[in-house]
Order: sequence, then structure tokens, then C-alpha cells
Amino acid sequence: MEITDAVRKAAKTFETPFLIMDLDIVEQNYRKLQNAIPGCKIFYAVKANSHVRILERLRNLGSNFDVASIGEIKKLLELGVTPDRMIFANPMKREKDIAEAYRIGLRLFVADCPMELEKIAENAPGSQIVVRVAVENKHSDWPLSRKFGTDMLTAVDLLGYAQKLRLKPVGVSFHVGSQNYNPKSWSNAIENVAKIFYWVERNFGIELSILDIGGGIPVKHLKPIPTVEEIGQTVLQAVNEYLPNVRNLTIFAEPGRSMVGDAGILVSRVILRCQRGSEEWVYLDAGVFHGLMETIENFRYELVVEGKEEEKKMPFVLAGPTCDSVDKIYDDAMLPYNITLDDIVYFINAGAYTVEYGTNFNGIPSPKVYFVQDLT
Amino acid sequence: MEITDAVRKAAKTFETPFLIMDLDIVEQNYRKLQNAIPGCKIFYAVKANSHVRILERLRNLGSNFDVASIGEIKKLLELGVTPDRMIFANPMKREKDIAEAYRIGLRLFVADCPMELEKIAENAPGSQIVVRVAVENKHSDWPLSRKFGTDMLTAVDLLGYAQKLRLKPVGVSFHVGSQNYNPKSWSNAIENVAKIFYWVERNFGIELSILDIGGGIPVKHLKPIPTVEEIGQTVLQAVNEYLPNVRNLTIFAEPGRSMVGDAGILVSRVILRCQRGSEEWVYLDAGVFHGLMETIENFRYELVVEGKEEEKKMPFVLAGPTCDSVDKIYDDAMLPYNITLDDIVYFINAGAYTVEYGTNFNGIPSPKVYFVQDLT
Repeated sequence: MEITDAVRKAAKTFETPFLIMDLDIVEQNYRKLQNAIPGCKIFYAVKANSHVRILERLRNLGSNFDVASIGEIKKLLELGVTPDRMIFANPMKREKDIAEAYRIGLRLFVADCPMELEKIAENAPGSQIVVRVAVENKHSDWPLSRKFGTDMLTAVDLLGYAQKLRLKPVGVSFHVGSQNYNPKSWSNAIENVAKIFYWVERNFGIELSILDIGGGIPVKHLKPIPTVEEIGQTVLQAVNEYLPNVRNLTIFAEPGRSMVGDAGILVSRVILRCQRGSEEWVYLDAGVFHGLMETIENFRYELVVEGKEEEKKMPFVLAGPTCDSVDKIYDDAMLPYNITLDDIVYFINAGAYTVEYGTNFNGIPSPKVYFVQDLT
Repeated sequence: MEITDAVRKAAKTFETPFLIMDLDIVEQNYRKLQNAIPGCKIFYAVKANSHVRILERLRNLGSNFDVASIGEIKKLLELGVTPDRMIFANPMKREKDIAEAYRIGLRLFVADCPMELEKIAENAPGSQIVVRVAVENKHSDWPLSRKFGTDMLTAVDLLGYAQKLRLKPVGVSFHVGSQNYNPKSWSNAIENVAKIFYWVERNFGIELSILDIGGGIPVKHLKPIPTVEEIGQTVLQAVNEYLPNVRNLTIFAEPGRSMVGDAGILVSRVILRCQRGSEEWVYLDAGVFHGLMETIENFRYELVVEGKEEEKKMPFVLAGPTCDSVDKIYDDAMLPYNITLDDIVYFINAGAYTVEYGTNFNGIPSPKVYFVQDLT
């Protein structure tokens, strides 16, 4: 997202820190993915940014939703999203959440181990099951595979077990890891998942029809990224090559970051600059516990300092406003040499996984969210 | 804190996860520190646990408060705590927070660099200043020294600069790091701080009267800890030895963790157990974003599984309930071999820095807080 005049004006007007978002960019992102993979059913991963305005815009576009908890399900229901537009994709659901989701009418669940299937069979009998497999994550910023997903052999066992539990095994999902830079990650995954499709048909008579390609489409930060068109092309080619004979195949996608990441800018302010030993420190009113949680894993945002875009840069330690040593953003942020008190610092493309992790730590509230659509 | 029958009953009754606290233990901790360092002015570090009930109990005991933001100040004001019982100890304050605090009547501020002094001089003219120095943190679980505190030479400059800015330099503070295991950390710090006291008196005619020994008193987890009496003894000896001639010396302490840590137990529940490759995973309804943020830095709690205290233990990967790979509590938690769905897991002595970091991530609310005083 560009730092438009409206954004600059907001930075001067509103109390910092805040996230400013553009709903039209969210819409563009949705349409781009829809065009890149025609017929694909998009389930927006609500956890990336659950602001009501974003959910409403995507609802109006016909989006479906990937939900992680009963809290997200209820929020969507209140917005008029029907349960048939949701996939309960968290592989570790509370039993009472499963039961409540089922009561509401949700029938599509993800599982990646036997106990989860048993929980679903008990609390949501007869529901549809997508089994999640772990795939290569090495080209992503956040490899997920250890915590989530099962191996291919266990996957076929789970699909068979689902059937035995009188659930309806309908598909396989995978996640190439958040912020994945290599389209081949998707085609390699599809090649493997295709083997599962054919194996369970041949051996169990299970006809799967859902290929869930998860999320992982990257947002532009400092490194070059493939376009969504390139990723879509790769996915379609892989589907044609490895799954040519599947009847009624539907591709699901669960994008989170790529729907909202580049639709937002986190606007913060310098509250202190000082020398500590040989280091120059800059402290902001945003920090790890106030919008920038992802930086503790060294996630790199593009930083712009208002009015000092052309100044010579030097390295600073950049930290947040709390009395907590963990609240350090970067050890080596390149910032204008003359950055000082009250300067505005923009974190570009920070629409995903920022305010969602917000805390009230140190009595400091989480950043507010504004929309450029509301600015005059 | 012991797992009493009342706690076990609460675990069976209330929806997990939740933090259960005992206000009487908070009171005991306050009195113990007061007795260990007679005449010491205790400023409870609100950020450790800002629950109103805890603040009220400490208020009634006559405690003072270490505040990190205008949010904490206003919360205390609403509870009838007057501003003369507060120290604004965050070394990186927003200017408008300083101004607002001053307007309210707060007159005691901490600073550790020139710009912070200038901000205070501008927004809170004539206020009292405590300068924070960085001291050895090596015996603590959370070394703080890089983000906070200045060196001894800069400290005397700052005390002189404060005077020049028509502020009132009144003392020096240090923090030995959170959860410090060695009482000598305090005496070594006091030895150094004493040199600052005498130097500024001799050279600038500044008579300091506040020795602020910060926090860092440890809470019992897996490692043995010194008692608060041992730490108090060490502090008093050091004061007698290194600061024998200071008129009207007052010792300040800013305990957070040691007031509330062992006054709480985080109660969680197993929502899934599964094998992943060669690893056994257990997933809880509490996690990094729901009460256990400190575990991402490998902070080690004692874990107890209800009803399985005597079972043989084996290593598990322990993770939280969100769709986020960062939400992993421990790679190698020793838990009963037969731990399973719905088992209750207690995190012992989790009263500090747990719910304070709570988020609503994944649509999952932060753990609730209960008090044993309210159970029947």
C-alpha cells in the first residue's frame, strides 16, 4: 500500500500508533486470486485480520471463511455469513467448539490426527472431513509443518478412519507455510496430494473432491515475491498434470496474509532517541506487544520515516514502548541518521497479523484501526 | 501457590483456561518484603498483573505503584490511589503521557537519557528525577540492561543536566533483571550506585536521597531461589557499607513478579494429543498468545497434571490452541505418559506476566481471572 496524502494526513491527525487500511485493496486481492485460479473457492483466514469491515467487504464479494475458533464463527454469523461458507480449519479444536459449530450448522472440518477425528465424530457426526498433510515449507518465512499436518501414509489412514467413524472424507489440505516465495512449493505439494487422492480411491473407494491449497501467498516486503498470477498458473498446471481424472474437483484456498497484508500501513511515532554504549536506540509508540509481534521472529517490514525519505541512513536498535526487554523490534533497522522525537515511522504492508496480536500490556492499548474509505 | 481442593474444584467447574489467584498470598508477599527491608517504600510494578482486585489489596496495604503508562495511572486514580504514591518509571514515556501525569499531580519520574529529561522538563517542570543505571544482569532470567539504563558516567551527567533543566534530581534506580537468582547482584549494584551518590554531592552539590533497587526478586519455579529475607539482608548490609552517611536515605523497591507470581496458577486443559513423526504432541487451550507468552523465551513453569501426579513422565512437545507455529510452549515438557484429552494441566506460580500479555488472537479470548477468596 502506498503512503498516500490521505495516509500522511491521518498520521498528522490521529493519535499514534494506528493501522490504516484500504478496503479496496482487500477487494483487489480477492479478485486477483479469484482470477488467477478460476473456480477456486476462497476461504479468507479470519485470523490474519478479523476487523468487521474487512469481513463485511469479503462477505459482500462472496468469500468463504477459514475459521479457527467458535469466536470467529459467531462473529461471522452476526455479519450474516451462513455456516456453509465456513471451514473449521484449526486442526486442534476444543470439543465444545466443535459441538457448538455443528449445532449452528457448520459441516466442514479439518483434522490431521486420529483423536481429532474422534472428537469430530462424537460432536459433529456425519460431517465432511478435509485431512491436512504436512508439506515442504522451506521456501516460507514461517514453516508450519512440525505443529500441523500429517505424513502421506497417515493421511490415507485418517481418510479411511474418518469413513469408519461415519464421517465424510472429502478432501486433502496442505499449507506451504506463511509467506512462501517459491511457486514450486505448491506444485510439489499437489503432486504428493494427488497420490493420496488416487490411493484412497483405489483402496478404500473414497472419492475425494476437494483440493485445499491453504495459504502462503506472499506479500511484498523487502524480498522479491512471485505474483499471485504466477502461483495460480503453477497450481492450475499441477492440477492438470497430477489430478486430471478427478470428478467435480474443487480447489479451496485459505489466504489470510495475501488478502490484507498489503492493504495496511502501521503508523507509529518516535517517543525517544538515545545512545546506549556504542548503539543508537530509537523507541516507538508501537512495539512487539502493540502491533509488531511478528518482528520477534525477525519478520522484516519496509520502514519509511515521514519527511526523511531521502536522508542518509544508518543502523539503529528499534524498540517498543513497554518496560520489557522482549519489546525490541529490530537490532539493526536502517533509519535516517537524523531521526528524532515525534518523527512518524510507517511500517509498510502491515495489514496482516499486526493488530490481531494486540495486547493491553503496560496499560498501553492496542493500535486502533482506520480505513482510508472513511477519510475526507 | 498450592493446588488446593478449592483450585481443583474450580478446575472442574470453570471453563478453561483461567488464572486463579490468592489475594492473601499477594498480601503476604508485600508484608514479607516490607519486613525484609524495614522502611522500604514499595512501588508495585503494575505491569506484572494489573487486575483491579490486586491493585485494591495493595492499595489497602499502603503500597505505592510503579506505573508504565497513563493507562495504568488512570486505573489507579479510579481506585483512589493518589499521584504521590506513584513513580512513572518507564524510561520511554510519551510526551503527552508525561504532561497528563503532571496535570494529574504526579511529580516523580525516571529517566535514563538526555532527551527523556528534556521531555520531562518541558512537560512536567520542576519534577523529581530518578536516574536509572544499567547494572550487571547476568544472574537473571531476563537481562534488561541493553534496552534500559545508562552507564555510571552518563548517570552523573544526567543528574547534573536534570538540575540545569530545573528538575530535582533525587535518586538513582537500577534493575538487576527480572527473576534474579543471586543476592550479590543487588549489593554489587548498590556499591556502584553509592559512588554516583558521593560523586554528584562532591562535584555538583546534589544531595540524593532515593536508592531505588528496582525489582528482580525471584519466584520459585524449577530452580532454587534465595529468600526475600536473604535479599533484604544483602541490600541492608550493602546500604550500611556503601551509603553510611546519606541523610534521609529512602530505599525504593519496584517488585512486580515477586508480589504476584506465586499467588496464581494458570489452569488449562488438553484439547488434543497426537503423534507427529517421532514426537508426541500435546495441545492445550492456553498457549503463547493466551497466558503463556513468557514461554517463548523458554521460561520454565512447574507443570502438574490433575490426577496424574504420580505417573511416569516422558517428553512431549507442548503447544497452544492457535493456528500459529509460534504458539509452541515447550519442545520438551515432561508430562505423564498417559496424558490425554480433557486432562487438566496446572502451570504453577503463574500469577505474573501471564494474562497481562493476553490477546484475542484466533478469536480465542484471553484467560479469565478468578480469586480463591470468591470460591465457596
